[in-house]
Amino acid sequence: MTEIPNPVDLAVVTVPANKVLSLIPEFDQKKIKNVLLISSGFGEVGEEGKILEKELVKKARNAGILIIGPNTMGICNPYISFYCVGSHVRPPSGGTVLLAQSGNLGTQILAFAAKEDIGIRAFCGSGNEAMITIEDYMEGFEVDDKTKTVVLYVESVKNGRRFFESAKRVGQHKPVIVLKGGRTEAGSSAAASHTGAMASDIKVFMAACRQAGIVQAESPMDLLDLSAAFSSLPLPKGNKVALLTLGGGWGVVASDLCEENGLIVPKLSEEVISKINKLLPPFWSHANPIDIVGEMNPETYMKILEELIQWPECDAIIHMGIIGRKIMIKAIMESTAIVDKKYDSKFVENALRYAEGFEKQTIEQTVKLMEKYNKPIIGVYLLNDDETRTVTEVNGGKYKGVNFITPEKAVKSLAKMYQYSQWLKV
Amino acid sequence: MTEIPNPVDLAVVTVPANKVLSLIPEFDQKKIKNVLLISSGFGEVGEEGKILEKELVKKARNAGILIIGPNTMGICNPYISFYCVGSHVRPPSGGTVLLAQSGNLGTQILAFAAKEDIGIRAFCGSGNEAMITIEDYMEGFEVDDKTKTVVLYVESVKNGRRFFESAKRVGQHKPVIVLKGGRTEAGSSAAASHTGAMASDIKVFMAACRQAGIVQAESPMDLLDLSAAFSSLPLPKGNKVALLTLGGGWGVVASDLCEENGLIVPKLSEEVISKINKLLPPFWSHANPIDIVGEMNPETYMKILEELIQWPECDAIIHMGIIGRKIMIKAIMESTAIVDKKYDSKFVENALRYAEGFEKQTIEQTVKLMEKYNKPIIGVYLLNDDETRTVTEVNGGKYKGVNFITPEKAVKSLAKMYQYSQWLKV
Repeated sequence: MTEIPNPVDLAVVTVPANKVLSLIPEFDQKKIKNVLLISSGFGEVGEEGKILEKELVKKARNAGILIIGPNTMGICNPYISFYCVGSHVRPPSGGTVLLAQSGNLGTQILAFAAKEDIGIRAFCGSGNEAMITIEDYMEGFEVDDKTKTVVLYVESVKNGRRFFESAKRVGQHKPVIVLKGGRTEAGSSAAASHTGAMASDIKVFMAACRQAGIVQAESPMDLLDLSAAFSSLPLPKGNKVALLTLGGGWGVVASDLCEENGLIVPKLSEEVISKINKLLPPFWSHANPIDIVGEMNPETYMKILEELIQWPECDAIIHMGIIGRKIMIKAIMESTAIVDKKYDSKFVENALRYAEGFEKQTIEQTVKLMEKYNKPIIGVYLLNDDETRTVTEVNGGKYKGVNFITPEKAVKSLAKMYQYSQWLKV
Repeated sequence: MTEIPNPVDLAVVTVPANKVLSLIPEFDQKKIKNVLLISSGFGEVGEEGKILEKELVKKARNAGILIIGPNTMGICNPYISFYCVGSHVRPPSGGTVLLAQSGNLGTQILAFAAKEDIGIRAFCGSGNEAMITIEDYMEGFEVDDKTKTVVLYVESVKNGRRFFESAKRVGQHKPVIVLKGGRTEAGSSAAASHTGAMASDIKVFMAACRQAGIVQAESPMDLLDLSAAFSSLPLPKGNKVALLTLGGGWGVVASDLCEENGLIVPKLSEEVISKINKLLPPFWSHANPIDIVGEMNPETYMKILEELIQWPECDAIIHMGIIGRKIMIKAIMESTAIVDKKYDSKFVENALRYAEGFEKQTIEQTVKLMEKYNKPIIGVYLLNDDETRTVTEVNGGKYKGVNFITPEKAVKSLAKMYQYSQWLKV
């Protein structure tokens, strides 16, 4: 180690467990104060490993060395292009910090985040938490300005009081989103076998989460949806949602989902109806969901969105099919070109470029509306292709475009945002 | 019309509503007995439209003409390469029939089905159901041998007794999966405005669904997941699930989801443990979920799967991360090739070809195991790329490979299959 010429900020250790202890004097000599300990074979393998882990922590502490892990899948910080993670993905930098008490689950969530352009502040697989525990990380997230949203996969917490107290403090400034592994007997028994963690009292944990304003995810994908929504959109002040559709059953389905998730689909006021009457032909729905049927003019959508967002009874908007329509247009153009030679590849290209330009512009204007009126607007694609992304950054502004593939993701995320905004008021 | 030389099986009509009636004598003259009436402007636009629709039905009936629609997004039948649908997609042929009382929703679901390789028997947007109603279609599905799974988006049913009685009969032979639009007050009020359908009594509808053995979907994407599972896998005889993971929190998360969805994660018997002991190094979990940690040998997975599927306490298997690992391998290979010139593009290609071959083989062997033991095995990718598909057809066998992106989709689908198998026993 001493042959390395310059100072070393961080040692990444992957040697077998029984050789780790002997590295401490070398770290000391080289003045290495931070260690990422990937190696497994410590507390998670039984009594012997636990003893080894304790001894390691003691020696490291005496030498003033901080250890992440052992048994971790690594860490990353996209802000400084530092990636030391088992999963080789490069998420964009952003406001979501992701900490997982399971490296596999954490790195795979990180891969999904990268795919959806969800900006990451940092990732950490906390491993066995021999020295630095989830409670410590929480206190770090509290003071880190770049962290806007805290996302955790938690199997067990050593010091519940400290964890929930800091979660409550952090929650005042930034949402804390938690997927608890081991919510059920089957799950907590699996967790005990996995990390050696004791099955904590689940009901108590859940109640403490609610009190601390923790946003609870029900599945790994929820973590991503909630990250996207919380880190990109203003919080809704109430639970009243305006739904905008291009026709059909999507408005019905979204209304059902809203009511089932504690959101309200308010009736349109006469004033709003008469405003929209001026924008749409007479056969629009005249009700919420606002079904604009065959309307094709992109500017009309934007005008309706602005009428709705100004309406005092509207706390949030979910629009469906406006973004994502280019996929449908592409399919129609391509099959038209097959049967009608007038529609050559140039025609298809132009139509697509127009559709893409329109979608980009819609997202930009949506973000502007959110900045002006401070209410969330969420899009739903209803179709997806390889270019579909949940989050779209727009000119580095305060908010971002969020478009989910399905209405269920939009509604569930909005409902959790509403719950969190209610907790903040208490 | 008479200038068309040959007989016409089906007339596809898109002329304005007020010109449709005058076509009937022409159809009669040309001996056209089937009409797909795309045109809108009938019952859904109000009283006047309703009168026009009634008159049309009367005249058509007198002329012995069948009408699908009006106000429909079309029909398709991949078996004869017949596509007459608003959404230009070409799903593969298969056993799932999809009928939607919303053209938009239906065709977009059809697009998702095509993307996931879910085989389609036929699609129909039933439109206003002026003449052929959902009750009629149900009786068709009952006698059609190619229909293996019936998937419906339903907003309203005119003759509830007839619908539920036929659903019950159909359900004895093939599952009937329903997403009900208008489960809530908000949803049914939106449905009333959309199709002009009366809000039916929701609780009664839901209770009747349960009695008739109808599998109830909660969101549009559920319809796809359930289509994939029901049309590709044997039904589980009980609710006990063996979970196989490559390590980490996925086993914990899947255990939670199982218990929350009425499935059981049984403890491994001593016999099974000693059998797996012979296959894996000593640090495997020795419990269900079966966490095989770092094991990389593809043949080992298959041997473990076969041990598990023979275990009497196992009604179904969900494995996670075995299929989909090639995406991880690709990422690792690509980043390794950047830093180490020994790993050139040829090396990466070979490794990928190996991983792909292994995944293909695993799916094939999984299907063989299902055929031999008649128990469902579902995979979970945990990662996805542009090639990820839910359904994989294997040599035209009875069953197909099903791999979902997330454990929640696998667990929820399996739980619904279990419920249906319980209903069949009553």
